[in-house]
Amino acid sequence: MIRATTPPPVFYTLPPLGSNPSTEAQGTSPGSFALRPGVGTAYAFSSPDTPGMPAPSTKTAWDFLPDGWEVLEGTEARRHEGTHGWHVFTDSMDVTRAICPVEGFVPSTQLESARLGIVTPQMRRVAEREGHLSPEQVRDEVAAGRMVIPANKVHLRHKLDPMAIGRASKTKINANMGASPVSSGLDEEVAKLKYAERWGADTVMDLSTGGDLDATRIAIIENASVPIGTVPIYSMIIGRTIEELDERIVKDTLISQAQQGVDYFTIHAGVRFSHIPLVRKRLIGIVSRGGSLLAKWMLTHNKENLMYTMWEDICDIMREYDVTFSIGDGLRPGGLADATDAAQLAELVTLGELTERAWRKGVQVMVEGPGHVPFDQIEYNMKLQRTLCHGAPFYVLGPLVTDIFPGYDHITSCIGATSAGYHGASMLCYVTPKEHLGLPKAEDVKQGCIAYKIAAHAADIALGIPGTRDRDDELTKARAALNWQKHFDLSFDPDTARAYHDEDLDVDTDFCAMCGHDWCSVRISKEIVEFASGKDESYDWDKPQRSAALNKEQQDILQKRGNLTQDQIMKLAHKGKKADCHSDVVKDSGTAKLVQLNTLKAHGVTVNENGL
Amino acid sequence: MIRATTPPPVFYTLPPLGSNPSTEAQGTSPGSFALRPGVGTAYAFSSPDTPGMPAPSTKTAWDFLPDGWEVLEGTEARRHEGTHGWHVFTDSMDVTRAICPVEGFVPSTQLESARLGIVTPQMRRVAEREGHLSPEQVRDEVAAGRMVIPANKVHLRHKLDPMAIGRASKTKINANMGASPVSSGLDEEVAKLKYAERWGADTVMDLSTGGDLDATRIAIIENASVPIGTVPIYSMIIGRTIEELDERIVKDTLISQAQQGVDYFTIHAGVRFSHIPLVRKRLIGIVSRGGSLLAKWMLTHNKENLMYTMWEDICDIMREYDVTFSIGDGLRPGGLADATDAAQLAELVTLGELTERAWRKGVQVMVEGPGHVPFDQIEYNMKLQRTLCHGAPFYVLGPLVTDIFPGYDHITSCIGATSAGYHGASMLCYVTPKEHLGLPKAEDVKQGCIAYKIAAHAADIALGIPGTRDRDDELTKARAALNWQKHFDLSFDPDTARAYHDEDLDVDTDFCAMCGHDWCSVRISKEIVEFASGKDESYDWDKPQRSAALNKEQQDILQKRGNLTQDQIMKLAHKGKKADCHSDVVKDSGTAKLVQLNTLKAHGVTVNENGL
Repeated sequence: MIRATTPPPVFYTLPPLGSNPSTEAQGTSPGSFALRPGVGTAYAFSSPDTPGMPAPSTKTAWDFLPDGWEVLEGTEARRHEGTHGWHVFTDSMDVTRAICPVEGFVPSTQLESARLGIVTPQMRRVAEREGHLSPEQVRDEVAAGRMVIPANKVHLRHKLDPMAIGRASKTKINANMGASPVSSGLDEEVAKLKYAERWGADTVMDLSTGGDLDATRIAIIENASVPIGTVPIYSMIIGRTIEELDERIVKDTLISQAQQGVDYFTIHAGVRFSHIPLVRKRLIGIVSRGGSLLAKWMLTHNKENLMYTMWEDICDIMREYDVTFSIGDGLRPGGLADATDAAQLAELVTLGELTERAWRKGVQVMVEGPGHVPFDQIEYNMKLQRTLCHGAPFYVLGPLVTDIFPGYDHITSCIGATSAGYHGASMLCYVTPKEHLGLPKAEDVKQGCIAYKIAAHAADIALGIPGTRDRDDELTKARAALNWQKHFDLSFDPDTARAYHDEDLDVDTDFCAMCGHDWCSVRISKEIVEFASGKDESYDWDKPQRSAALNKEQQDILQKRGNLTQDQIMKLAHKGKKADCHSDVVKDSGTAKLVQLNTLKAHGVTVNENGL
Repeated sequence: MIRATTPPPVFYTLPPLGSNPSTEAQGTSPGSFALRPGVGTAYAFSSPDTPGMPAPSTKTAWDFLPDGWEVLEGTEARRHEGTHGWHVFTDSMDVTRAICPVEGFVPSTQLESARLGIVTPQMRRVAEREGHLSPEQVRDEVAAGRMVIPANKVHLRHKLDPMAIGRASKTKINANMGASPVSSGLDEEVAKLKYAERWGADTVMDLSTGGDLDATRIAIIENASVPIGTVPIYSMIIGRTIEELDERIVKDTLISQAQQGVDYFTIHAGVRFSHIPLVRKRLIGIVSRGGSLLAKWMLTHNKENLMYTMWEDICDIMREYDVTFSIGDGLRPGGLADATDAAQLAELVTLGELTERAWRKGVQVMVEGPGHVPFDQIEYNMKLQRTLCHGAPFYVLGPLVTDIFPGYDHITSCIGATSAGYHGASMLCYVTPKEHLGLPKAEDVKQGCIAYKIAAHAADIALGIPGTRDRDDELTKARAALNWQKHFDLSFDPDTARAYHDEDLDVDTDFCAMCGHDWCSVRISKEIVEFASGKDESYDWDKPQRSAALNKEQQDILQKRGNLTQDQIMKLAHKGKKADCHSDVVKDSGTAKLVQLNTLKAHGVTVNENGL
């Protein structure tokens, strides 16, 4: 049908290409516009730099070894093979290192094992879960400090399934939960944990400030297959004021929580006394709970932040159980107007210093980031952290890109989170629709998780992480084939997709209620035989068929939408004999006729000689 | 309390700064990281270019004047002042132009008026609505082709409130609606129009393909204060097959719709015969309804797209009523795998050609864009369009940044839309949660509009458009002052924000249910007197007070969330005498006591001697 034609001339130049996020060369997209992947370097998966962005640090955790360690590279290293006290190994970038820790050293953390060239079972498991990485690459990323595996030895004895956070692995999301003095209880928190895991949370933070904190935490850890993080200062001041906080309380609390199996601690050691005046001109001062409490402590005692001065002691406690640092950003901005200001960036410099000090103690580190950041400032925030913290994974909260949409902050923030993930963040802390207004309920946890799965997944595709677009491509093929069941099966939330579809037309046809039969571009596109999509027969649409009766969850979804009466929903749920044609609810008979005509075949009411 | 301390040394360099999106120098943010504004140039408000991005075109609509026109600049121009047939004016960039149109020329479109130096009433109204632009700047942007004012003369006689689309003005959003043969009717469409206007749609497209198309269109135009767009090919094939389409039908339909008052037409003239083979390897072929219909027409008749060959005739019809072009992208990708491919970009080259030809005919032009685009490819798509279409406003659909979240595509796409807006799109066509599944209901229209208001607003702030962050800053101040009522008043959707808040704690206290009293960072931040935020007394939080009874909408919101029983919602709605303390619903008495303690004062149950 189509004549050979001269292809149109090309008037454009594509930017340099990174890798294709599809396993096979699916589709016609030229591949990712991110930089070419460089696992084993600071550029594992990276966006190209907009002019003015700081370059990555030239240092890694290898530059911050404990005192007394010796390390050699290359030929010199190879000469120490077999020498007592020396560990010699060649990494996945073909660099041979010889390491001599201090006498009698026994590795306790994943970082320490990695430094000795050991591939731990947790690293193996991580490599299994990240299809594109080998166990050795995981080890090398951990050794460089660019990846963490938050896995408290105690939690590993329960159900923890080890995972990794870092720019070489896929982008992760965290769900916050926790009882407050005003709302929520233990059972509800465990239920929220299960709900968060179901909807894809990679880690969960228990931020309880009310109820029985220890009982809640233990219950969550015992039930969690994902790493659990906490902000221990919350426990430190239960039953006392912040002013009463002292070193003994800090140590006791950290030891207790480490023993309970917490996988990572947020410690707001970066808020220093000298930073406080920088907050003065802000519109909304300090919005981090930990940050504001410690600022108050410093002002009361006229002393430097005790978390900062105690840093090495804290490291010793965390090293023993392999609790990972999530160094808190107590001065994160609480509104767009305060973003990227002197206070925030001064603290970030300190976070870099604390990263170096923790690495010297053998403790794994990730660093927390904002919060509320205008869209234009996100890339800079990510890349400045990469520089100042030498590639330690960045774990950001959102950020929100506007402040005037309370009730929708899962959306305002997942926009920022996508950009953050693309430009360098390794984990995205979710924000739910209840943010700024109250504690999230189970439904909010789901909405928050989904918004953040969108952000993380979109960032991974954008970065060209191998295989991350495969499911999108499969769904596109199912869509092209008008195979509705497969379309829903490949959806992240099949129940919602099916319920929305069946709300209009509970029959799987070769069109949908958006356009109707005659107007379905995908159907027409299939008609143009030469360009038929969805050629894979396993995708092919067969014939119109009634969808199965709605399950409970799908009924609930339709009920909450409130567009159908209870009666209509029950009809859909039970799929009675009478064809539930939409023309039933059309007012005038002329319109009804049109609708009937269009859905006749689909509903199987009349089948013509062609069988369709 | 605070000692003078040496400020910490600065270890970072900020990128070059654009302008501050706040009217006053609010807060501590250094301002936008976008380029410095250049209204009157191709860089009106622009993101900095990532390496590999095409530079803006050096041409504008001034380079595509009708045959027979003469134009002079500078001293030469000034010499024609007072000469018969010449229009001489100095624009807002201080360029003096002398224009001599063909004999007897009478301007019909905003573009033609602008070319003669005329500031129309519509341009004045646009300048009023865009606080940062003067009427002359609006005229100059229209003359350059970088801005359109879609305002059919017929619609102007009804209630149309003129607005502008272009990169010098704020980013706009469009809401699609329209009956399909399978779903929805006339009344419902008008109700959706009002709902879309209420939730901030700047323009509305009536994409009806079912029901009485003319009646629906007329009703929508008569009721709309926003410009109305259509895709006239939908009307052209009612009652006939696409194969029967001919030039006469095209003309008659366009004339009829222009006479009805449609403000802009989507015409898929960019799909050319030679592009069709480029679609062959796509995963999902052609997903534009107009594009697929015209491809079928071309294949059937073995002829070039008649919209392309008839372009000048179409221009003549549109010029008469000042209908603006929205040149359709019939080959937009239908999945990530097909984004930025040869077919899409070949069509974009044609869209540039059609832009030039329309400008020569005096017709205003915007250009439509994708669709489904991975996050990394969005900037390139925006900037390539800026180059090939010489700055004509880009009107994009989303784009979605992942394909596997049907039911949540308002979110997947508003992420892409934010990036598109920042990198150069002038209008964002919303996507609702029902996209790919069925026709949007009123609630979906609201959700789509809100997601896109978020995207447009976030982009405007990021670009540093003056004044766009003011409301965010006001809300941040209210938040800092813990002034809940003001917080809600400044919210985009106050009812939802209030309902979510009252779900946990129907008392406006100096804390919220997220953290409770003792843990409220904002409250603690206020305590640190020297850094008190929200100093403006009009923001100050007064004392705990019961919020007013929930209105109907707020009750509905809570009901749909399904976290409270009907009984609890009614209690909230009526605000009976009994304090509706949350401790009532806590199971064990110990927890209840804690909750009561924390909310005692707030509920006004007991007030101590300090009155709080």
